Amino acid sequence: MTHSPVSAGEGVSIGQYLIKRLQDYGVQDVFGIPGDYVLAFYSELEKSPIQVVGCTREDNAGFAADAYARIKGMGALCVTYCVGGLSVCNSVAGAYAEKSPVVVISGAPGVSERTSGVLLHHMVRDFRTQLDVFEKFTIASTELSDPLVAFAEIDRVLDACDRFKRPVYIELPRDLVHVVPPSAHTYRVQHPKPDEEALAEAVQETIRCLQNAKNPIIIAGVELHRFGVQDRLLEMATRCQIPIAATILGKSVISERHPLFVGLYEGALGDAEVTRFVEQSDCILLLGTILSDVNLGAFTAKLDPRVCIHATSEAFRISHHHYHMVDFCEYLERLNSQLDIKASRPIPDSLRPQCVVEPDGSARDDAKVSADLPTASAQGLRTSEMMRELNRWLDVDTIVIADVGDALFASTELTIHDRGEFLGPAYYTSMGFSVPAALGAATAKPDHRVIVLVGDGAFQMTGQELSSLVRDGHAPIVIVLDNHGYGTERYLQKDRWDYNEIQPWSYADLPAVFGAPRGVFVETPEQFKAALKNARSQPDQLHLIHAKLEEDNASNTLKKLAEGLAKHVG
Amino acid sequence: MTHSPVSAGEGVSIGQYLIKRLQDYGVQDVFGIPGDYVLAFYSELEKSPIQVVGCTREDNAGFAADAYARIKGMGALCVTYCVGGLSVCNSVAGAYAEKSPVVVISGAPGVSERTSGVLLHHMVRDFRTQLDVFEKFTIASTELSDPLVAFAEIDRVLDACDRFKRPVYIELPRDLVHVVPPSAHTYRVQHPKPDEEALAEAVQETIRCLQNAKNPIIIAGVELHRFGVQDRLLEMATRCQIPIAATILGKSVISERHPLFVGLYEGALGDAEVTRFVEQSDCILLLGTILSDVNLGAFTAKLDPRVCIHATSEAFRISHHHYHMVDFCEYLERLNSQLDIKASRPIPDSLRPQCVVEPDGSARDDAKVSADLPTASAQGLRTSEMMRELNRWLDVDTIVIADVGDALFASTELTIHDRGEFLGPAYYTSMGFSVPAALGAATAKPDHRVIVLVGDGAFQMTGQELSSLVRDGHAPIVIVLDNHGYGTERYLQKDRWDYNEIQPWSYADLPAVFGAPRGVFVETPEQFKAALKNARSQPDQLHLIHAKLEEDNASNTLKKLAEGLAKHVG
Repeated sequence: MTHSPVSAGEGVSIGQYLIKRLQDYGVQDVFGIPGDYVLAFYSELEKSPIQVVGCTREDNAGFAADAYARIKGMGALCVTYCVGGLSVCNSVAGAYAEKSPVVVISGAPGVSERTSGVLLHHMVRDFRTQLDVFEKFTIASTELSDPLVAFAEIDRVLDACDRFKRPVYIELPRDLVHVVPPSAHTYRVQHPKPDEEALAEAVQETIRCLQNAKNPIIIAGVELHRFGVQDRLLEMATRCQIPIAATILGKSVISERHPLFVGLYEGALGDAEVTRFVEQSDCILLLGTILSDVNLGAFTAKLDPRVCIHATSEAFRISHHHYHMVDFCEYLERLNSQLDIKASRPIPDSLRPQCVVEPDGSARDDAKVSADLPTASAQGLRTSEMMRELNRWLDVDTIVIADVGDALFASTELTIHDRGEFLGPAYYTSMGFSVPAALGAATAKPDHRVIVLVGDGAFQMTGQELSSLVRDGHAPIVIVLDNHGYGTERYLQKDRWDYNEIQPWSYADLPAVFGAPRGVFVETPEQFKAALKNARSQPDQLHLIHAKLEEDNASNTLKKLAEGLAKHVG
Repeated sequence: MTHSPVSAGEGVSIGQYLIKRLQDYGVQDVFGIPGDYVLAFYSELEKSPIQVVGCTREDNAGFAADAYARIKGMGALCVTYCVGGLSVCNSVAGAYAEKSPVVVISGAPGVSERTSGVLLHHMVRDFRTQLDVFEKFTIASTELSDPLVAFAEIDRVLDACDRFKRPVYIELPRDLVHVVPPSAHTYRVQHPKPDEEALAEAVQETIRCLQNAKNPIIIAGVELHRFGVQDRLLEMATRCQIPIAATILGKSVISERHPLFVGLYEGALGDAEVTRFVEQSDCILLLGTILSDVNLGAFTAKLDPRVCIHATSEAFRISHHHYHMVDFCEYLERLNSQLDIKASRPIPDSLRPQCVVEPDGSARDDAKVSADLPTASAQGLRTSEMMRELNRWLDVDTIVIADVGDALFASTELTIHDRGEFLGPAYYTSMGFSVPAALGAATAKPDHRVIVLVGDGAFQMTGQELSSLVRDGHAPIVIVLDNHGYGTERYLQKDRWDYNEIQPWSYADLPAVFGAPRGVFVETPEQFKAALKNARSQPDQLHLIHAKLEEDNASNTLKKLAEGLAKHVG
């Protein structure tokens, strides 16, 4: 990231400066929908190297920008005032909760329009309403209403987005887009100084704990990916031979085929052997892990705080005491350079990665995963078997996106081959994430194939974003898991309620509405396998597979999750 | 509205009381999507006489509840925490701006769950985030976390919804749904006392102004409908022979076939003769009119404040002075009983209502509207001609819903036969309102036929709500006006930009995806006429008409609006 100063006299307008700074952070695409309060800025975007990616709905633009940010390190969306901005609240709140660096740019009525006393269209209560709302789920926000400080405000807000990996909000009144500030500008964002001595002590104490431990383990969280420090982790873990587990939200933060990777830790919900292996450790180093209910197995995680070292970008804790102002990346750097142990704990073969990467990078199926889908036992289609089949196909050029519900839970059974190639809203769990996220991921990595796992309920929310994928020539494989409703909720309640049923759709007919070839309907393992094979053989084309699940099918994770959560549902 | 007190010992839980009170206000249906934080309350709803109407997306539930509220006097939606609640921000903000009494009910984590320190799924920043957000666009809000005051809080908030005709927000922690408060409850909502003397003076001054006026006119606004006081208005206007105009947002607040109705006043955007007739008046009585840019013709309205009397539920102004605490309904009541003039201003024949209701209630087409669509002149399809054709079909059992864009502007040319039978978000102008609103309207008035006018851009946002209309057996006629993009925005800018183009869909294929018969594609006036005729002849079936418009077609209103707004776009 370079900060080239802008001098007075260069004639750079506020709109142009914002575009330039977005590019500095690697943003090459902006998602959104135009509207009259933001048309002036849209025209500036069109004239710039940044690509404008239109979406069908604003909240979908939010999900797309979120996915793009998770892959590229920063994403951006651009919408009009209120009708646009207030439509992305949920997507942006999700990005906030799961730490995805999304820049929200909203047009607004011109400063000069605000004096007449006439109510302007799209206004809710007063001109500050939208800014007030976004302050609740962004890490920094600004209204660029004063040319004198506009550039400095852009710097401050984008820096916060990058530093905290959280969304930020920039409101741009439409009559200021073309305004050139009257004075020179120098980048001078200041960060609070981390506490050097606290850091040193934290590192020393961590090293002592690990030296004294017989069987340490690392739980790798999503922040390792957000801050791009996986290499430091892997270097340290490899040198010291410390096994690594991950959380659902951190799934694919390192390749799941790494020899030290033991699986996903999900408390009582996950693989019992992984759970035992983690919980029996006498020193658990949680790195960048968000401690949430779903992420930690619906209250079933049994991690004794006295053996935990929990380091994130926001807090640092060993046992029951806390260190403040410890920089997460610096901590990891020091730990990597100073830690010198050889953990002697053997990893049971059963926890060894299920596939091993061949020297040429291709996947070698081992016995455990290459078993064909059982055909005699199962008439119907079950998610677990579908995941086994998918596991045969995944490679380093595949990105898997799982929507909320059993799509997410079942996907924990997938083995992801490369880091960062699994996306799922595992903490905030907002339904409808996946199809728009596929647009974001395909835009960020057009040479990768995206596989979407989405339940029918979630698909009905945002499925029309297939349209933008078709328009842009992307070729995802979208697997709609049809259990005629909100299946997860059925598992949370004893009684069967009508409100969890939804209208059946002919999902396979939908791609044709958007200009793509028809999808395919499958209800047996053979049909699914054939459909997947066909989709893989046509890499330039969008495929929708409408997979009708066996009645009451649920992954083991979902069944266990439902038991964990049901007592709270009431 | 009755307020039957609830006694201790009756065993009424908080969830049950909320349901009971909603019914007191006439709410018979609740729109929404279940989620685990709100399942307990959903089950209570299912057991109650209230019907749960599932939607495909939460924001659609918001639009549906809004339309329902506009028709029935109060509407309600019920969603889960954050992922649900934060998805309805835009719909609820629109209801706030346009004064629609919508009750937002959101589930929330149980109070007893909040103590563990573990982050719960769907959480954003802290437990108050969603409440904080909704305070920005509701007139009253509450979190029902204390059983002792829960009933009183429900009373207070629902009363505010009814009184101010604005949305309210009720958050219900899931572990309190079944809790029975320990003490008896009496309804005791107190309202601030209006200023009797200010009211008397305001009425007297209004009467003096009208007595001295040579050619008074009334501009009827949407609040007359919201407060259900159209009869008082009509009684007074008829007795005193004062002509009545309406605003776009107030369209259909009285029947547009009433002999005193002269048309929609939209400043320079509307019919020039109506504009002249209104602006030449020497006493303009604006009743319940929201003064917004679109509502008042994009800054082109020329209403001399010195001849205006502007009364709404929130403010009262004559010329340049204001009266405070004047009750709107009471003001209208007094004016109706005390005003005794005979306005001598003749209404030109050209402003007379275009159709007259036959004694049997059926429409008699007059020459002006019964002219067939021209066939020789127009190869392509133009909205103005489509509206002329539609005008032949409208009757007192038809509800017209117009989405934002030229659907809304062109619809100003329709003559609505009964009061309250036109719905359009003419002030907040949020795209995507119409199809979900059709669900709300059809639920509120199942014996009416709903006609939806929606542009292709708006349809792509929320069109999947057709699914719920099909599920519930409703039979709207949905006319998709296809100009391959955001047509209104094209008119606002000199240059042609790609971002206003959208992916073409085979809209007519969509109903079949949801289980309804195929739609029909039309691109000539004859085809449109035939499709409309066919749709009218099958009143039990949903019809989608994909109407491809002539290139660059726009209603006159849109063309004039674009001129008015373009200078602000930049």
